Amino acid sequence: MHIRVINPTITTSWEADTQRIYAESAGPGTKISTVSLNWGSASLESRRDQALVVPEILSRVVEAERESCDAVIIDCMADPGMFEARELVSIPVVGPGQTSMSVAAMLGYRFSVLCVLDENRPIVQDQVTRYGFLPKLASVRAFNVPVLQIDPNSASTLQAVVDASAKAIHEDDADVIVPGCTSLAGMAPRIRRALLERGLQVTVLDPPPLAVKLAEALVALGQSHSRRSFAPPNPKEIRWPVSTAFLD
Amino acid sequence: MHIRVINPTITTSWEADTQRIYAESAGPGTKISTVSLNWGSASLESRRDQALVVPEILSRVVEAERESCDAVIIDCMADPGMFEARELVSIPVVGPGQTSMSVAAMLGYRFSVLCVLDENRPIVQDQVTRYGFLPKLASVRAFNVPVLQIDPNSASTLQAVVDASAKAIHEDDADVIVPGCTSLAGMAPRIRRALLERGLQVTVLDPPPLAVKLAEALVALGQSHSRRSFAPPNPKEIRWPVSTAFLD
Amino acid sequence: MHIRVINPTITTSWEADTQRIYAESAGPGTKISTVSLNWGSASLESRRDQALVVPEILSRVVEAERESCDAVIIDCMADPGMFEARELVSIPVVGPGQTSMSVAAMLGYRFSVLCVLDENRPIVQDQVTRYGFLPKLASVRAFNVPVLQIDPNSASTLQAVVDASAKAIHEDDADVIVPGCTSLAGMAPRIRRALLERGLQVTVLDPPPLAVKLAEALVALGQSHSRRSFAPPNPKEIRWPVSTAFLD
Amino acid sequence: MHIRVINPTITTSWEADTQRIYAESAGPGTKISTVSLNWGSASLESRRDQALVVPEILSRVVEAERESCDAVIIDCMADPGMFEARELVSIPVVGPGQTSMSVAAMLGYRFSVLCVLDENRPIVQDQVTRYGFLPKLASVRAFNVPVLQIDPNSASTLQAVVDASAKAIHEDDADVIVPGCTSLAGMAPRIRRALLERGLQVTVLDPPPLAVKLAEALVALGQSHSRRSFAPPNPKEIRWPVSTAFLD
Amino acid sequence: MHIRVINPTITTSWEADTQRIYAESAGPGTKISTVSLNWGSASLESRRDQALVVPEILSRVVEAERESCDAVIIDCMADPGMFEARELVSIPVVGPGQTSMSVAAMLGYRFSVLCVLDENRPIVQDQVTRYGFLPKLASVRAFNVPVLQIDPNSASTLQAVVDASAKAIHEDDADVIVPGCTSLAGMAPRIRRALLERGLQVTVLDPPPLAVKLAEALVALGQSHSRRSFAPPNPKEIRWPVSTAFLD
Amino acid sequence: MHIRVINPTITTSWEADTQRIYAESAGPGTKISTVSLNWGSASLESRRDQALVVPEILSRVVEAERESCDAVIIDCMADPGMFEARELVSIPVVGPGQTSMSVAAMLGYRFSVLCVLDENRPIVQDQVTRYGFLPKLASVRAFNVPVLQIDPNSASTLQAVVDASAKAIHEDDADVIVPGCTSLAGMAPRIRRALLERGLQVTVLDPPPLAVKLAEALVALGQSHSRRSFAPPNPKEIRWPVSTAFLD
Repeated sequence: MHIRVINPTITTSWEADTQRIYAESAGPGTKISTVSLNWGSASLESRRDQALVVPEILSRVVEAERESCDAVIIDCMADPGMFEARELVSIPVVGPGQTSMSVAAMLGYRFSVLCVLDENRPIVQDQVTRYGFLPKLASVRAFNVPVLQIDPNSASTLQAVVDASAKAIHEDDADVIVPGCTSLAGMAPRIRRALLERGLQVTVLDPPPLAVKLAEALVALGQSHSRRSFAPPNPKEIRWPVSTAFLD
Repeated sequence: MHIRVINPTITTSWEADTQRIYAESAGPGTKISTVSLNWGSASLESRRDQALVVPEILSRVVEAERESCDAVIIDCMADPGMFEARELVSIPVVGPGQTSMSVAAMLGYRFSVLCVLDENRPIVQDQVTRYGFLPKLASVRAFNVPVLQIDPNSASTLQAVVDASAKAIHEDDADVIVPGCTSLAGMAPRIRRALLERGLQVTVLDPPPLAVKLAEALVALGQSHSRRSFAPPNPKEIRWPVSTAFLD
Repeated sequence: MHIRVINPTITTSWEADTQRIYAESAGPGTKISTVSLNWGSASLESRRDQALVVPEILSRVVEAERESCDAVIIDCMADPGMFEARELVSIPVVGPGQTSMSVAAMLGYRFSVLCVLDENRPIVQDQVTRYGFLPKLASVRAFNVPVLQIDPNSASTLQAVVDASAKAIHEDDADVIVPGCTSLAGMAPRIRRALLERGLQVTVLDPPPLAVKLAEALVALGQSHSRRSFAPPNPKEIRWPVSTAFLD
Repeated sequence: MHIRVINPTITTSWEADTQRIYAESAGPGTKISTVSLNWGSASLESRRDQALVVPEILSRVVEAERESCDAVIIDCMADPGMFEARELVSIPVVGPGQTSMSVAAMLGYRFSVLCVLDENRPIVQDQVTRYGFLPKLASVRAFNVPVLQIDPNSASTLQAVVDASAKAIHEDDADVIVPGCTSLAGMAPRIRRALLERGLQVTVLDPPPLAVKLAEALVALGQSHSRRSFAPPNPKEIRWPVSTAFLD
Repeated sequence: MHIRVINPTITTSWEADTQRIYAESAGPGTKISTVSLNWGSASLESRRDQALVVPEILSRVVEAERESCDAVIIDCMADPGMFEARELVSIPVVGPGQTSMSVAAMLGYRFSVLCVLDENRPIVQDQVTRYGFLPKLASVRAFNVPVLQIDPNSASTLQAVVDASAKAIHEDDADVIVPGCTSLAGMAPRIRRALLERGLQVTVLDPPPLAVKLAEALVALGQSHSRRSFAPPNPKEIRWPVSTAFLD
Repeated sequence: MHIRVINPTITTSWEADTQRIYAESAGPGTKISTVSLNWGSASLESRRDQALVVPEILSRVVEAERESCDAVIIDCMADPGMFEARELVSIPVVGPGQTSMSVAAMLGYRFSVLCVLDENRPIVQDQVTRYGFLPKLASVRAFNVPVLQIDPNSASTLQAVVDASAKAIHEDDADVIVPGCTSLAGMAPRIRRALLERGLQVTVLDPPPLAVKLAEALVALGQSHSRRSFAPPNPKEIRWPVSTAFLD
């Protein structure tokens, strides 16, 4: 099985890490390959940033299907382009945001999403509303570390994330913690342990591996999104400044 | 007051009609100017089509603010780019979709959205969910006229739309009809009359004029979207194949 | 265009202020006229107070239509009699409560309504539930200034309202502030500036002007409430101690 | 225990029937007394009709408390004045609408309300929304017998009501039937039997007796509405054309 | 009328108290009889505890109907076995949890449930979700007194319960307090008085008596649960280690 | 990895089929073992049936953890005992009902659950409500084949299931079909093909394999349910007629 991971940014230096994170959690027969974008944003912190990467994500998803990939994962908690891309291909298009919120809702009653900055809260809330999880949302809590200072291996990042999680538990009655930024990938066990030391026994999810497992499961079972929800677009004139897969 | 209407497609032949429709409902002191896109789709019938027009919509919205426009309207019921563009400007960015659904919810208990084809239903349902109007939605009903055959002045288009509306009223208990495609602009009075002849007295909205009126109102009152919901993006590297306003 | 504003109280001394507030935000071709009630309450702070003004509001609305007014606005955030009056006339009957909550939901994700006293909270919550905006409601917050001491031009009223707004933003994640009492009309710009000085950039609405603009828009576009939601009552015997328009 | 039933109309000829219906289901130690209104509507089929009876309902409720009644029931499925009156008294103010919908939600998963005419549907839907039962509502179905022809003892009324109930069960998946008009009082057993003959085994409620039982229960247990939800109004000037209890 | 109360535990020493509490609030013609279980848990603090008592609750409910009881009450706020038992009998099966939450929703806008320990919160939240009252729920608040130390007559239990109630009112905007453990039966008047001394005027319910009153009302009116929601099970092989009524 | 599947019935003749279905979809390193119950019901078609199997399911789940199984699957769409068992173990306890509804909500906008008989509808609706998926539910549709006549390989069963699915799509706007009975395991591809022949392109899920994949994923990632949602029960006296694992 071949799963294509799309790093939905132009920051190609992230590719190696992305490849590693997803490959680590892939099953024995699963090949992971990662691609980045030529055009778009260096990172995704706003709706504007997301909008600018969707067109080339569509190309990369179509390309993946043509290259006989079995599924695609878009490596961002905001799942940019996931719904749009599903119109263009039959293979599963999976996002860590939708996957982890769905799993969170299964493993407990109320979940909190940790976002980077306070201004990201409305974006997450829009996403939660769209996915239908508003009644399960305990809160969206920012851990407020400037993006460039996020280091999943540093004590200060851990401290900030754990503090935000503890508040989500104590003040918002969260049962499950969803780290809402894939730059926190791999931190889940340490967050969980730190919370346990404070006497708080909750589930802390690690979204990227969950997305791999969902993609693997759908491929293994021959399942994918409903083409009634995501119908193929009609052919029509599209004008685009560069050559892309979705134009053909 | 100067309102910029964005025809969110590359079909420049629609510009004149769009300009006329919006100018007709504008108040005496309001100037309407219409622009189209250089890149993107010829029409918007899928999420893919929408995704391809958002980047240049962002440019056009930024451009409008720089050219001292007082508000922007995006001429499509799907409101493509409306939330994204609000991050980039302080002037109101208004869409006929959000406006007409909000007015529908004010003027009656349950509304139905008429969409072109059955496969558009899930897209409208996603939009209704996002805007929070699911409990007010009677139904999304397709009138099933192929896009190229929609002629707002033809008897057959009217017949199809009125039939779908009557079903929405009888079978789904709709109190208000929202024509869910701006190509039906101007038909509202005729739809209403035809329904009245069948003994059905409902409100039938005409979304483009409502968007003009909302834009005029917000400008007149010095109001706009909350920058706490739509925070300005952080500066970052963006790579794009053509020069655009959002890059500066 | 002629819009009739109903001061839904017997306090005729408020008429001049009401007339001024609504006339100031009316468009060039709009005439505003204000009437008060002969019977009912001096102010509206309870459901009882509201109930006692609705009968004569109905008369005043019917009268307005007979006098060829094009729309009616009921000047109270609780929108007393709005739904009832819509049964009796074809012209739009608009309330600042429904209008401002609808606009708040359009301009941001979550809104808070500021009410005068803690005991008003359930009344506002009932109204929000009825209008379907519960999932968008961040909170109802009282600013707790005794009604007779509310002075929209005083520093202490401003301070109380701004403090309540700041709490709504910090503790309840409000993106938009809706001053829930028309006695705060005109304060919105000052509230917004004061919040901005505290680093809080939100939209603060001014409900009365929004109601004027909605009324003007509906009239200009020939739109009104759905007679399927608000059917004309059947003729029947009504006994009333004084002569009223709704009796005819 | 003394329960005052308010016939919320000026049709005093209904008093005897009302008295009988409520007295029949009262417990051994319960005295029922019925009063009608001097001013208002002859029957309640619209929001206008309801609005015109609330002021004197308030008087009658205050009067009931002064006359040492232990609880009040307002004999109409729309519960006119119930929330308003609760501000003015400490004794329970109960309505057959709220009571029967609450019991319906307890005894089954989904309930349908039968209303007289199609145009009553939105009024019932507003009421269901307000009470928070929208997710439990299977449908509002009209049985469409003109009010003056409703005869709870006639075969044709029974036929119409049973037909509407059967549709609610087959087409809307109703588990419980709530006759939405107190003029159907006493018909529940016959409706249930007729449905059973068609193989449909559902619960059919009789709202007036349920209201009696709730009132008796609250009185017996010393319970009543929350004064935090229904705070006493502040004293203020009220001008009213006739002498009423709420003026004192 | 004969109402059977089931003490849904094996702690037969509670039987006398249970019998007393329910008998005290029963009407003059009502006989209360109480039975306990032979198999199951000593108390009900977890879903596991609940699961272990449901089988014999079913037997006891079937037995009650055979012994010509007119209704059954299951004496636990979690209403264990209530839905299941309704499939097996035609007589009403009532629980203090469902009854008190329904009454709370009638008597005020938002209610809080007081639970014993923090870990009970999710169980109550699940129950509230199932009953459809999530939009009416202000909060679930633990009063955190170890079960064995709960003494409804002690000052320290009262203090803990009143403190939790006051927090529910101040921080969660609760209008009605539902003591979420039948071991607090009879405390409602003292809780209400203590809150009143703190200036908080809310309704405090006493669930067991409410359940008695609902059972009495349903019996008196010949009403019960919908057999369409709770259809009788098909006959089938059941193997069980001890003889039980549900096996026949 | 060792996953224990619990056939939650006393019908041991089903064990071989159950073992085969789950083993077929398990990954290469996964061992599946299946156990049945000693006490309980022969099949699960009612809440009563479910209640009778939960106690021994708890034993079997505890036993599985003691025997070093890595996860447990309860083989029934109603997920009997899933929430209860999570209190007793740290390993994941997974059900095909919760899993498939969650996946359905991810792969499309609205899903329908096919149930065996009309009387099962309320049970499924209760489950959907509890899981929070009511806004995503298109319908619960019975295919109405008597249980003993269900043969996943027969043309008549296929016909009945496909007819019900087509109705769910046409009349209820379903995008995803969830066969709501594990006796339909393995039919998904045939149902999908048959619908495709009717021009209906939807996703049809096969719940048991999805449950296997979720269990495998959670084990592989070291994830499980939140112990804050599912806290371990306090030790207490339990009396039970036979020796069971949960007693220790």
